[in-house]
Amino acid sequence: MTLATVLDAIDTDLDAALGRLCDLLAIPSISTDPANAGDCVRAANWLVDDLSALGFKAEVRETPGHPMVVAHGGDGDGPHVLFYGHYDVQPVDPLDLWNRPPFEPALEDTPKGRVIRARGASDDKGQLMTFIEACRAWKAVHGTLPGKITIFFEGEEESGSPSLVPFLQDNADELKADIALICDTGLFADRVPGIVTQLRGLVGEQITITGPNKDLHSGMFGGIAMNPARVLTRLLAGLHDDNGRVTLPGFYDGVPPLPDDLRAQWAALNFDADAFLNEVGLSAPAGETGKTPLEMIWSEPTCEINGMWSGYTGAGFKTVLPSQAHAKVSFRLVGQQNPEAIRDAFRAYVTRNLPEDCTAEFHEHGASPASQMATDHPAFEQARTALSDEWPDTAAFVGSGGSIPVAGYFKSILDMDSMLIGFAKDDDALHSPNEKYDVESFHKGTRSWARILNALNG
Amino acid sequence: MTLATVLDAIDTDLDAALGRLCDLLAIPSISTDPANAGDCVRAANWLVDDLSALGFKAEVRETPGHPMVVAHGGDGDGPHVLFYGHYDVQPVDPLDLWNRPPFEPALEDTPKGRVIRARGASDDKGQLMTFIEACRAWKAVHGTLPGKITIFFEGEEESGSPSLVPFLQDNADELKADIALICDTGLFADRVPGIVTQLRGLVGEQITITGPNKDLHSGMFGGIAMNPARVLTRLLAGLHDDNGRVTLPGFYDGVPPLPDDLRAQWAALNFDADAFLNEVGLSAPAGETGKTPLEMIWSEPTCEINGMWSGYTGAGFKTVLPSQAHAKVSFRLVGQQNPEAIRDAFRAYVTRNLPEDCTAEFHEHGASPASQMATDHPAFEQARTALSDEWPDTAAFVGSGGSIPVAGYFKSILDMDSMLIGFAKDDDALHSPNEKYDVESFHKGTRSWARILNALNG
Repeated sequence: MTLATVLDAIDTDLDAALGRLCDLLAIPSISTDPANAGDCVRAANWLVDDLSALGFKAEVRETPGHPMVVAHGGDGDGPHVLFYGHYDVQPVDPLDLWNRPPFEPALEDTPKGRVIRARGASDDKGQLMTFIEACRAWKAVHGTLPGKITIFFEGEEESGSPSLVPFLQDNADELKADIALICDTGLFADRVPGIVTQLRGLVGEQITITGPNKDLHSGMFGGIAMNPARVLTRLLAGLHDDNGRVTLPGFYDGVPPLPDDLRAQWAALNFDADAFLNEVGLSAPAGETGKTPLEMIWSEPTCEINGMWSGYTGAGFKTVLPSQAHAKVSFRLVGQQNPEAIRDAFRAYVTRNLPEDCTAEFHEHGASPASQMATDHPAFEQARTALSDEWPDTAAFVGSGGSIPVAGYFKSILDMDSMLIGFAKDDDALHSPNEKYDVESFHKGTRSWARILNALNG
Repeated sequence: MTLATVLDAIDTDLDAALGRLCDLLAIPSISTDPANAGDCVRAANWLVDDLSALGFKAEVRETPGHPMVVAHGGDGDGPHVLFYGHYDVQPVDPLDLWNRPPFEPALEDTPKGRVIRARGASDDKGQLMTFIEACRAWKAVHGTLPGKITIFFEGEEESGSPSLVPFLQDNADELKADIALICDTGLFADRVPGIVTQLRGLVGEQITITGPNKDLHSGMFGGIAMNPARVLTRLLAGLHDDNGRVTLPGFYDGVPPLPDDLRAQWAALNFDADAFLNEVGLSAPAGETGKTPLEMIWSEPTCEINGMWSGYTGAGFKTVLPSQAHAKVSFRLVGQQNPEAIRDAFRAYVTRNLPEDCTAEFHEHGASPASQMATDHPAFEQARTALSDEWPDTAAFVGSGGSIPVAGYFKSILDMDSMLIGFAKDDDALHSPNEKYDVESFHKGTRSWARILNALNG
């Protein structure tokens, strides 16, 4: 019955919990922009204060970048869990596409239900607060925390996590637990909870092509001078063939064929690709010919242009022949694809195809391999049952197209398996203007953690 | 003797003349940026005041865009000349590459001599002032202006001259003269004056490709969602073949073969392509295989990317799959190429090659045909002799890669031939950071106009 009491406490406290979330969302902790470094520290301190109030021994831990939050609390015979989330958020541009200031969170009633609107509402502040609120309710009912818990929040997830690996290495003994709980993923379908068992990796690259030593007049030099923007478009256009397959030599080394049982399990999910694409104004899966939609986002690697710029981009027109052209390119990795080998293949391809009078400069923006969870750990089945009790549909083991490198690092550095359980929805507009998190995700997410922690400690 | 006296007056007055030029350069009359509209009016008024002081009947004439300056003065038996220049300038970005504020003009001593450093120093304020200073010196010596002169300055040359054609049509009787003098071109070589007899035309286009209806998370959607940046790179990369030839159907219609006599004349100029390219950090002519360097910049059409942008272009990295990708593209035209036909061919090519789920939007940024001067008019030979007297080398009839549409409009609307005579140098950094104008160009340019006006009225 005590679980029911905890769930009731969560229901009763919902409005206050939403208020606490809005306080955290009001802090513009954009990790990729140096101008917001102070805000990242403020967000970390806010979390330490809140966790301390729950009885955790919580601390802000300095790093060369933004600080980590580490908290320890509780006890019991159940498994010692490490809960992970990140308090940093994506940049907000283009700002003019937001229907309200991104760091002035508000509750909005929409045709699809009540939402919390703000940058970070879904990725990841709203999600990490579901776990904290579950602990709060448990504490209120039991006077103790739900089992032995270590909480670990980072502030560099949206900017390549430069400090994460060294921090895990330096604090391995302190952070090692029986299993990690990571809340940075989504529901499979609108109301179907999922436990992610495979994640794509990520390689980020920035490239600058330089031709003339300064911007030139396209009348005086057009036709005789190398145009680096033209060179860049040829290089980027050559990265895919006409079937949408990446052309880099060796790119598909380590990409496993999809196992038949997984193929069958995914087919049973009846993924509605049309609805998924229509939501964002598209109608046709644009991936490699012959692959299913779920393969395109879960088990196939990608190469995407995330940004590019060259020459005059302001109002009006400027007949300039630019000196430089830039692009930010990322690769999503699967199976055993080697991040560094793929970075090298990309750089070799560019260098090999550079025309005379052009030079290329590269800057790396992180690299992480894909990861695969060991679903035979008993906690997976206990969590799946607990989730199925909370939600109308049975929980599924699914993949994720996103990269959550920390799961790979927990395995490689702490030899710890991870359960990735999250409550975001496909229309949450992660990384986009008008990001939101459904109040239902927040509320049932909190209840879900109470059920899972109860099951793990039952 | 009187010409010598005028030339002496020019020499004596040089410092004061440079001071006047710096006053005009200090006005940031950037025509393409609406924020500078007031500065364009200030520049026009400054010129009207200066011309009035010389005895011209000068007026600022309103247009739907930036105003024109029209002034009439002088008399005599020589041909009635219309002098044209433009008081507007290019934008200044990237501002951080300037070694001083672009609108705080200053004289600098460089290894190659004394220069005036400021945006517009060479294009075109410094050049138009050479004519005004020649008139000033003549007036000081003779008490009259050097012949019957109409002066016509526009303020939209750097932004497609939207008001020019209607203004010429509405004021044809007033502006028609025996011949036009246009000062917006350069010396052929550092000290070899040129009279431009052919000019390339220009078509400006802006294109926006839209895929998803908002920016997406490249983890969640990467691999299944159409990326408009990838679509744009493929479209732009397809505009040239491997020999640097433009692929648009019908693009070369109306491009004449280079006449043998012109080919011989240009060969005799001994154009130093290596020096021309080395000056901007390049070493190899990048135009169509088999064409000479002078053909590439004077008699061959081009297609250039002047700007492009998509997705995240700030500091750090953002794994966004952009909703839109943009480019500014221009075409330089020669012979009888039809600007509208080429704009249509470009739009048809883009539309034809758009994948499912992508839309294209186009915005036009001006269009003008190429033009060819009638060098049999006696003024051409008189001017060539006068220029040859001032400069160490004999003046040459040359081409220009730049577009000076007004010359074409003078012919088509006013039935008036133009002599394009200018004193800019290849290293003036037109449209680039650290634009400059050599004091020698300004000084000998002023003396050149005195000689030419003397010859025309002799």
